[in-house]
Amino acid sequence: MFEYETGVKLQDTDAAGLVFFANHFKIAHAVYEAFMESIGCGLHLIIRESAYLLPIVHAEADYKAALSLGDALTISVTADVGKTSFTLSYDFKDGQGEMAARVRTVHVAVDKETGEKITLPDEVREGFLRIS
Amino acid sequence: MFEYETGVKLQDTDAAGLVFFANHFKIAHAVYEAFMESIGCGLHLIIRESAYLLPIVHAEADYKAALSLGDALTISVTADVGKTSFTLSYDFKDGQGEMAARVRTVHVAVDKETGEKITLPDEVREGFLRIS
Amino acid sequence: MFEYETGVKLQDTDAAGLVFFANHFKIAHAVYEAFMESIGCGLHLIIRESAYLLPIVHAEADYKAALSLGDALTISVTADVGKTSFTLSYDFKDGQGEMAARVRTVHVAVDKETGEKITLPDEVREGFLRIS
Amino acid sequence: MFEYETGVKLQDTDAAGLVFFANHFKIAHAVYEAFMESIGCGLHLIIRESAYLLPIVHAEADYKAALSLGDALTISVTADVGKTSFTLSYDFKDGQGEMAARVRTVHVAVDKETGEKITLPDEVREGFLRIS
Repeated sequence: MFEYETGVKLQDTDAAGLVFFANHFKIAHAVYEAFMESIGCGLHLIIRESAYLLPIVHAEADYKAALSLGDALTISVTADVGKTSFTLSYDFKDGQGEMAARVRTVHVAVDKETGEKITLPDEVREGFLRIS
Repeated sequence: MFEYETGVKLQDTDAAGLVFFANHFKIAHAVYEAFMESIGCGLHLIIRESAYLLPIVHAEADYKAALSLGDALTISVTADVGKTSFTLSYDFKDGQGEMAARVRTVHVAVDKETGEKITLPDEVREGFLRIS
Repeated sequence: MFEYETGVKLQDTDAAGLVFFANHFKIAHAVYEAFMESIGCGLHLIIRESAYLLPIVHAEADYKAALSLGDALTISVTADVGKTSFTLSYDFKDGQGEMAARVRTVHVAVDKETGEKITLPDEVREGFLRIS
Repeated sequence: MFEYETGVKLQDTDAAGLVFFANHFKIAHAVYEAFMESIGCGLHLIIRESAYLLPIVHAEADYKAALSLGDALTISVTADVGKTSFTLSYDFKDGQGEMAARVRTVHVAVDKETGEKITLPDEVREGFLRIS
């Protein structure tokens, strides 16, 4: 499990006073980037220098409790690793430890040139196995 | 079916050169707002003046083909209407008519004061039945 | 003068109930993209195919009246064209015709390879002279 | 001076490969929120509980060097405090300590009910004097 602490910012919210539903995905992706950095696979390296990409083919979120400006957020990520893909589950807990939302993203490994599915690169697989 | 024409803007894209996955949800919501306006239930009216809200409890997207800056987008929406909830399906087609993504959002009707589930208001139900 | 009609979307607003100040710049840029498209210089063409770029070196906004969810917006753009740069002024008027905000962006033409300032390409200069 | 460390995220960038110009303002505002929190004036408290608001009446940015995905960012903020307003200057330095951008925001204190300008509340003035 990888944990990430943040808080709800004004730019995450909308005129209904709560976090706009699409922004849970933005926040989740920031956590993903922090995790990838932590395993030496920063996205800037992948996008600029690697022979593969890890595009998201599916994303979903269940919204369980409202999140408001200033709320503390602890997001914990776990991975389910396949041969050519992996699924990340992000649990969003608020300052009281209540589950506010669960986000899932499914990524596949593809060859940067051909776009064809490839076996998950070792460095990525090993990184995700740490949080499986 | 409700149709909405737009195009991919720079602010929708990221450094991988394509539409950032969370932005499909932002675009879908803009379509939802346009539809709600078209049936006389503009979100500004609901948020400010009605006795109910229609929060999103689930959202998901399947990404099928990359969308790039300047691509034309035609988004068509259909509804599946329940007693206290409705599901909207958004098909994103690019300029060649190819399916680029499918987004779904599930909304429930709740009482603005109590937060309790309520029967879908008639004006909303009737609006969605037009695109069922 | 180039005119663009839009409306305030939920994603433009924040928990204070109004358009988040940074989003005026996002909206202005959407107008810029629509204008560039209209003169045959769509940004996707510039970014992918041209020998130049038109980066923004300065941006500013004066906020004069609050903009709320559902407000109609008419944005009119005028250009001030220099030798290697141009300045765009965007007037945001709400549904009552009241000035809500004025945004300005200053762009320079640079060689895509060297990053050096270049004379404004003819196609761009001529396009902007139409709205000077 | 108040300092804030962050990094460029994928959601900050666009298809030109760099931070989208409007996102410098979003990042600056996140720094502002962190500072306000640090002086006990969290924006959620101001928006929900205080008798005043601190709307932005002017914002501007000078873009000096490109910021790319994964770049480290150190943002330092200083304040210039007036009777009814304050100006914040945000210096964005990249991982090499090079100035990448300078953002300025001008805020006024207004009465939440009447919208009239008021003298800057003591708690806010004192907080900003620490970074003047």
